[in-house]
Amino acid sequence: MKTLVIVAHPDFEHSATQQFLYHGLPSGEDVTRHHLDKLSELDVTVEQQLLREHDRIIFQFPLYWYSTPTSLRNWQDQVLTQGFAFGAGAVLNGKEFGIVVSFSDALREYQAGGQEQYTISEILRPLQAMAHKLGWQYRTPLMISQFAYKNDEERLALIMEYQRYLTQAGTGFAATQEWYLAQLATLIAQTDSELAQAKLEAVYEQMLANRDDLTELHWTVDMIKNEEEGY
Amino acid sequence: MKTLVIVAHPDFEHSATQQFLYHGLPSGEDVTRHHLDKLSELDVTVEQQLLREHDRIIFQFPLYWYSTPTSLRNWQDQVLTQGFAFGAGAVLNGKEFGIVVSFSDALREYQAGGQEQYTISEILRPLQAMAHKLGWQYRTPLMISQFAYKNDEERLALIMEYQRYLTQAGTGFAATQEWYLAQLATLIAQTDSELAQAKLEAVYEQMLANRDDLTELHWTVDMIKNEEEGY
Repeated sequence: MKTLVIVAHPDFEHSATQQFLYHGLPSGEDVTRHHLDKLSELDVTVEQQLLREHDRIIFQFPLYWYSTPTSLRNWQDQVLTQGFAFGAGAVLNGKEFGIVVSFSDALREYQAGGQEQYTISEILRPLQAMAHKLGWQYRTPLMISQFAYKNDEERLALIMEYQRYLTQAGTGFAATQEWYLAQLATLIAQTDSELAQAKLEAVYEQMLANRDDLTELHWTVDMIKNEEEGY
Repeated sequence: MKTLVIVAHPDFEHSATQQFLYHGLPSGEDVTRHHLDKLSELDVTVEQQLLREHDRIIFQFPLYWYSTPTSLRNWQDQVLTQGFAFGAGAVLNGKEFGIVVSFSDALREYQAGGQEQYTISEILRPLQAMAHKLGWQYRTPLMISQFAYKNDEERLALIMEYQRYLTQAGTGFAATQEWYLAQLATLIAQTDSELAQAKLEAVYEQMLANRDDLTELHWTVDMIKNEEEGY
């Protein structure tokens, strides 16, 4: 699955969050990053070709006035044209659509009674409406709040979550587990130390065993449910 | 009450809706119209002074990708700065905030199950969140759907509604009635024909009598309620 990350930030070089995410993506992944604010002008043909070539589209931006930055708003108007993105002859139907959004207030402020009063789900409704119009599958956004206050451990966890958000095939618990197993396998192949390799392999075997146990457990629970409901 | 209408439309001259609204506002009203897309560049000092001088701020725009046009998004980022618009030392608290929004689909499509899936209230949530942050009083938006399909009668009704939205002091039934009475009084003063003037005066007297009857009725109903509740 090929992922296109459309990054919008008017001051990308001085954004700690964006710089951190920029250096957090491993090379060799099937991910294209595309910085709108670095373009001297928007070439609609190039932009539309990028959309055609990728299966998963991610908007990555800081929340400005509860909306997307100007460069991304302009991109929508110029690139998502009728006959290409929606309407008769549209070719973008069925893409997966994700959002990596950062904001400086705590997440708990984004709810009724909080300082910001509305949830991020409510605030991002215009993008959800866009996904609906385009026939794109809307994924739960990856929310990065108060990056400046995160400690090293939280930042590491964020990088893992970010990498997973950009590269994991499918959603749900099973898909997540598969993703972690694949990451471990890569790590094992890249490790030179035999001891480290042996340790990683032990972790891998354990995760694999857990997964099989879990699958069996799910199967048993489903069977019991079906019997109780008289199927 | 002084009203500032901030108009954003990248092709104002060719928008039938915007042209219609432009010619629909009577002169002499305490209304300033300000076209963002006509400015060669945004002078933040001028913009902030305009905000200071007006009590009611209106955003007037077509809905593009369920959001505001680029010029208005940029205006927010540049003009609504910390220390001026929000935060310590902010001077814009307490303004009235209205929205005149146009869109090409029927209003009934903007609901769960409709083609657009979400209501205009949901889609405009980012502006509601902005109003909340700025301490502005959010008014029910004036929604203009499918202007192209409106007949002459509907367009006349729209102009009345638009003028009222921009100039009426306060909200609610009583305020609306006062506004219509004031409009009639102006019309009577401007009419040359004595017969027409007499007719308009009769209408005016009738509206005035109705208003007084209604006020008395409200008073009686309130009294009955209070007696029943034992106050």
